[in-house]
Amino acid sequence: MSSLTTLKKAQSGEITPEMEHVAKDEGISPELLRDEVAAGRVIICKNKHRANCKPIGIGKHLTTKVNANIGSSEAHADLNVELEKLRVAINAGADAVMDLSTGGPIKEIRQAVLKEASIPIGTVPIYQTAIDTIRKKKKGIVEMSADDIFSTIQEQAEEGVDFITVHCGVTRQAMERINRQGRLLDVVSRGGSFLAAWMAYNNKENPLFEDYDRLLEIAAEHELVLSLGDGLRPGCISDATDRGQIQELLLLGELTQRAHDYGVQVMIEGPGHVPINQIETNILLEKRLCHEAPFYVLGPVVTDIAPGYDHITSAIGGALAASVGADFLCYVTPSEHLRLPTVEDVRMGVIVTRIAAHAADIAKGIPSAIERDNRMARFRKELNWEGQINTSIDPETARKLWEGSPSKNGTTCTMCGEYCAIKLINIKGKTPCIK
Amino acid sequence: MSSLTTLKKAQSGEITPEMEHVAKDEGISPELLRDEVAAGRVIICKNKHRANCKPIGIGKHLTTKVNANIGSSEAHADLNVELEKLRVAINAGADAVMDLSTGGPIKEIRQAVLKEASIPIGTVPIYQTAIDTIRKKKKGIVEMSADDIFSTIQEQAEEGVDFITVHCGVTRQAMERINRQGRLLDVVSRGGSFLAAWMAYNNKENPLFEDYDRLLEIAAEHELVLSLGDGLRPGCISDATDRGQIQELLLLGELTQRAHDYGVQVMIEGPGHVPINQIETNILLEKRLCHEAPFYVLGPVVTDIAPGYDHITSAIGGALAASVGADFLCYVTPSEHLRLPTVEDVRMGVIVTRIAAHAADIAKGIPSAIERDNRMARFRKELNWEGQINTSIDPETARKLWEGSPSKNGTTCTMCGEYCAIKLINIKGKTPCIK
Repeated sequence: MSSLTTLKKAQSGEITPEMEHVAKDEGISPELLRDEVAAGRVIICKNKHRANCKPIGIGKHLTTKVNANIGSSEAHADLNVELEKLRVAINAGADAVMDLSTGGPIKEIRQAVLKEASIPIGTVPIYQTAIDTIRKKKKGIVEMSADDIFSTIQEQAEEGVDFITVHCGVTRQAMERINRQGRLLDVVSRGGSFLAAWMAYNNKENPLFEDYDRLLEIAAEHELVLSLGDGLRPGCISDATDRGQIQELLLLGELTQRAHDYGVQVMIEGPGHVPINQIETNILLEKRLCHEAPFYVLGPVVTDIAPGYDHITSAIGGALAASVGADFLCYVTPSEHLRLPTVEDVRMGVIVTRIAAHAADIAKGIPSAIERDNRMARFRKELNWEGQINTSIDPETARKLWEGSPSKNGTTCTMCGEYCAIKLINIKGKTPCIK
Repeated sequence: MSSLTTLKKAQSGEITPEMEHVAKDEGISPELLRDEVAAGRVIICKNKHRANCKPIGIGKHLTTKVNANIGSSEAHADLNVELEKLRVAINAGADAVMDLSTGGPIKEIRQAVLKEASIPIGTVPIYQTAIDTIRKKKKGIVEMSADDIFSTIQEQAEEGVDFITVHCGVTRQAMERINRQGRLLDVVSRGGSFLAAWMAYNNKENPLFEDYDRLLEIAAEHELVLSLGDGLRPGCISDATDRGQIQELLLLGELTQRAHDYGVQVMIEGPGHVPINQIETNILLEKRLCHEAPFYVLGPVVTDIAPGYDHITSAIGGALAASVGADFLCYVTPSEHLRLPTVEDVRMGVIVTRIAAHAADIAKGIPSAIERDNRMARFRKELNWEGQINTSIDPETARKLWEGSPSKNGTTCTMCGEYCAIKLINIKGKTPCIK
């Protein structure tokens, strides 16, 4: 290790420029932020090779952050489309973007994204390893080597990737537990399925678990955040919170401790598909089992029957999850379970997830979130429509709806017109009647 | 009273044909349903003059129901548009519709809706009273008489309206409590504001409270369900769960008891605007203070800053509310706070609210809800796309997205293509690799 990592610096009492930056953004004291970083309850996400990237903080006391997944697939592989998704995501308010490209020139796409993005970028390096094994070595995914896996991670860390998903918890023990238990849907994580298939084929343990220290060394060297992936996350409501999922989480807790000891920042990835009544338990478990490391959840969707509307099922789950302590919401788009998201899907996914995060921040007691709602309420009382529109999460959409249906009096909307409760109450005591 | 009411019959041990019907729909025993009706924890909604209407049950042990508000306003008053909204709402799965017309031929619209609807119809009679006062008597709303209010209710009960919102809890005591406390947004209920203005102008108590027995008599006579309105519901996040709201709720609890004694079925209306962390408390309070009468919530929206997306902010609040015991969700459309909803808004509002209700039913442990999700999971495991689409809440939308982005292999989707986790895991042990 060439120098102290952010985590080690925090532990030694140092406040780095990145901590100053994040503390200012969040409106908390740099000392508090440093202490939370030192404890591993907050992470600062920024690879040391990124110059153009604003650092973000994720975790306790901070606003809930939103990630947007972009990336090509076999069917749609166009660098320019992915850059457009990146821009749209940032404009809509994404705090981070993961490039999950698996089609076309995936290295070029990643490098272009890293060059253009002003926010942290995450990846799942095993995708690149798997695809290189197929394309360059003309072999099957299950024939990739442990070295292939680590050299891809090394390469991406050097390129400046800020955080990576690593499915270290997909172990033989967890797989056996799932097999003994039985699941409606086995493994639905793409990276998790690569590793599960690799382990079955090679009759070996997961290299990301066996050689975890090798991973820590790379992460520490480049200030790369490890997002400990839930490769065994349940893929449907009925599999939620099962023994396979919790077995993996137990292991991720131990790996969190090892990372912290090594000076590496980690967050934990969580489900996925969780019924409403199990969400709070999932958050509590992660916090207890994983040293309160920041929790990064994918949705969760709260029902399986709404393809086409999974941005909404996941906004429900994400809002509830974040309100009880989840720190980082991965968006889900209307295309989830059906197709690769379009640019418009990206925009919709970010906006809806920002709404969920904001609603959770009110519940978390974040002062700036509450103040924004109060500002809206005051504009409503004043029937000040410009104020309402400009305070909206998506002013363009609010304006389109309001202006598209002009009221006769110009001061109310076409729902109530002259019978507007606010108007009637505001004039009470003056002309308390409508004729 | 000409004969025993549904509630009195249940209390005397009788199982009516409507109870048989509802019990069958819900998959519970008629005896259990009868006992819950007798206790006032379930209501059966169907005016005795309605012939074409399917009765619905709302309350404990039953699936969460969804209401869609339709109705004209000053700016948009077209009978045919309102009938189209009614059809769209029913097709999208609404369990009940409220006609809140305030523009154009409101009596004709209501009668046409009642004639065409196969589901229960609700109204807010004070709208008609207020508008008649303006149009026919050429007076201000505050000049309507108590007799005007009750004769409208009588008329609508005779027409066959199944449930009415009556803001009996807007009393002097509650208004004083609000005034002493102060609110960001005073009164945002339209009917509530009419009554508040009337009380202030006339210096009198609310007739719906003072002459509550007169209301009970009409309701009992026609098997009309009273939806005890929350005319003082908070209109923004910061006013949620305040003393004015809870004062009104205390009174509604007393009025519930009086209605039950009289043999009249009631439900309680609830907010509106509630931050996520206060929703469970709101449900618990209603159940405790109002004899576990069914709770009918409007949303609630969980943040004020998302006009244009309030179908989503309310789906978040409604799903959470219903998961902890709310029984009946009033939809909110994308146009809320901006304009009168369009036909497409009605469709979107119902679908999104049905998603929220279904997600809550999973949390409530309703077997049919869970089984539907499991069916979807099995179709996903089989990569059976027709099955997935047909199990969806909106098959048309799911099909459009999936078919609009065809995958090369025809068996997966364009998100993962050949790297589909489900496909990879399904073939494990046979050809555990992709080349």
